Amino acid sequence: MSPIRLAIVGLGKIARDQHIPAIAQTEGISLAAVASRNAAQPGIAHYATLDALLASGEPIDAVALCTPPQVRRAQAQMALEAGKHVLLEKPPGATVSELAPLVAAAQASGKTLFATWHSRFAPAVEPARAFLAEHAPRSVTIEWKEDVRVWHPGQEWIWEAGGLGVFDPAINALSILTRILPRPVFVTGAHLAFPANRDAPVAAEVDLADADGLPIRAELDFLQTGPQTWDIHVETDGGRLTLASGGAKLFHDDAPLIDGNEAEYAGIYRHFVHLIQQGASDVDLAPLALVADAFLIGRRSLVEPFEY
Amino acid sequence: MSPIRLAIVGLGKIARDQHIPAIAQTEGISLAAVASRNAAQPGIAHYATLDALLASGEPIDAVALCTPPQVRRAQAQMALEAGKHVLLEKPPGATVSELAPLVAAAQASGKTLFATWHSRFAPAVEPARAFLAEHAPRSVTIEWKEDVRVWHPGQEWIWEAGGLGVFDPAINALSILTRILPRPVFVTGAHLAFPANRDAPVAAEVDLADADGLPIRAELDFLQTGPQTWDIHVETDGGRLTLASGGAKLFHDDAPLIDGNEAEYAGIYRHFVHLIQQGASDVDLAPLALVADAFLIGRRSLVEPFEY
Repeated sequence: MSPIRLAIVGLGKIARDQHIPAIAQTEGISLAAVASRNAAQPGIAHYATLDALLASGEPIDAVALCTPPQVRRAQAQMALEAGKHVLLEKPPGATVSELAPLVAAAQASGKTLFATWHSRFAPAVEPARAFLAEHAPRSVTIEWKEDVRVWHPGQEWIWEAGGLGVFDPAINALSILTRILPRPVFVTGAHLAFPANRDAPVAAEVDLADADGLPIRAELDFLQTGPQTWDIHVETDGGRLTLASGGAKLFHDDAPLIDGNEAEYAGIYRHFVHLIQQGASDVDLAPLALVADAFLIGRRSLVEPFEY
Repeated sequence: MSPIRLAIVGLGKIARDQHIPAIAQTEGISLAAVASRNAAQPGIAHYATLDALLASGEPIDAVALCTPPQVRRAQAQMALEAGKHVLLEKPPGATVSELAPLVAAAQASGKTLFATWHSRFAPAVEPARAFLAEHAPRSVTIEWKEDVRVWHPGQEWIWEAGGLGVFDPAINALSILTRILPRPVFVTGAHLAFPANRDAPVAAEVDLADADGLPIRAELDFLQTGPQTWDIHVETDGGRLTLASGGAKLFHDDAPLIDGNEAEYAGIYRHFVHLIQQGASDVDLAPLALVADAFLIGRRSLVEPFEY
C-alpha cells in the first residue's frame, strides 16, 4: 500500500516542531504538500491556502489542520467534501457544536476524521489509566502552570474569543484526565480571570467531580515564570499517583514508574494511519466540552491587561 | 394501569403556574407529593427535601425537578438511584457534561429521564418544522426580549454562575430553532453583556450557522420594557415564516397560519407518561450545548449593575 499523501495546513510553530518530524518517522504516511500563507517547507509543494491546494489537483489523500481553532471548521468541511481524510490539532474546534456536522460529513464521505489530543499519547497516560482501573481514586489535583510568553510567543489568536487562553494548554490536562479516570467527569464550579484587554482567560480554577463525588481541582496559570508545572496528582486507595511533566513521567508514592521519551506526535500519526486503514474516525469532544462548561458556569474577574 | 405517582421537587413559580395545572389535566399521572423547603400544596403530602421524601417511604414513581439548575444534577442522581423516573425542567442542568452520568444512571436503573424543553410543545413548532422540511431556509433572525423583573421577580439564582441570565429565556428560542431547522446548527460568534455585579449576562447577540452557511442571528435582552418579544423569523425559498409569541403563533408572509392555545406543559406531561410506558428516555442537550458554546466563544463586556 502506497503511503498516505498528507498536506499540512498552517505551517506554524506546532507544525514545524512536532508534525513534520513525526510524519517523517511514521510508516505509511508522507508529507506531500503545505498550505500556509506565510511559510513554506523546502522541497515540498506549496500553496497559499487550502482552497488553492484543493483547486490545484495536487494529489493528496489527507490534511493535517494546524491552523488556529477559529478557522479550522470551515477548512475541515472543505477537505472532507473534497474527499480527504482530516486530522485536527487540539482543540478540535472553536466550539463543541461545530463538530457534529463534521462528524456527519466524515461519515457521509467515508473518510477519517481524527480529533487529536496529543497529551493522551504521552508515555505515562496508559499506565496511569491501568493503575486507576485497579485502585479507586479519592481526589485529584491538576496543576498546569506555564509561561505563555515562552510557549506561545506573539500568538494573538490564543487571546481572541475562541482561542481559549490558559485553557489552550490546560485542555491537555483535561484530555489526560478524561482518559485515565474510570468514570466521566463534569464541571461543578470555576473561576476565570480575564485580562482587561483580552477575550480569553489568563488563569483559572476549575472544580470537577464524577457521579461518585470524586473531588477534582484544577489550578491553571498562564504567567508562571521559573519552573513550569504540568502535573496531575491522584490520591488513590493504593497510594499517590503523579503524572509529571505533562505525562512524560509517572510516580507512585514518589517512586518513578515511567520516565519516557516524549513521542506524542509519532503516536498521533501512527493512530491516524491506523484509522485511515480501518475506515474509522476518532472524535472525543469531552475535553472541549469541559472547557465550554467552565466558561458557562464560571465566575469571572478582570485582572491587569496582558501584552507580550 | 394505575396512574404514575409524581412528586414535584421545588414548588416555585413555574411549578405552581404550569406543572400543577398540567398534571391535573393529564391522564395517567397524578400529583402525590411535594418536596419544597418553603412551600406546600393543600391536600398533598409534603416534605422539606427530596432526601426526606425518599427516606419517608412515601410511594412515588417519578419526580419532576423544578429546582434551580445548579442543584438539579445531585437530585436527579439521587432519584434515579432510588428507582424513580425523572423529569428535568429546562435547562436540564448547570453544565452539559453533568448530563452524561445521569443518562448512564437512567439506563442502569431502567428508568425514564426526560430533559424537557417546554417551548418545543408550543403549537407553531411542529407546523414550522414541516414547512422548513419543504422550503429551504435562507436566513433566521431570533428576537427574544423580555423584562426579567416581570417574568423572574426576585430570582437571584438566575444571575448566579450556572443560572444563565438572559439565556434562561433564550434557551427556549434555541430549543425551537434546533427542532424546526433541517440541519444541526453551531455558534460562530457571540457578544455577552454582563452586569458589573452579576455572574450571568443581561443581554447578548449570538451568531450561528449550519454546515451550508445558513446565517442565524439571535438578539437577546433581559431589560425589555413595554411590549415583550419572543419571535423567530425565517426567510425561506417559499416566503417568510414567523413564529411569534414564543411559538404560540405562526405566520406565513404575515398571514396567520396558527394561533394556538398555549398548552406546552400538558404536552410535556403527555410525553413523560408515554416515555415511561415505553421504557424510554429523551435527553437532547443541543440547546444547552449552544449556550455553553456562546459563553466559550463570546466576547464579553461589562454593563451597569443590575438589581431587582
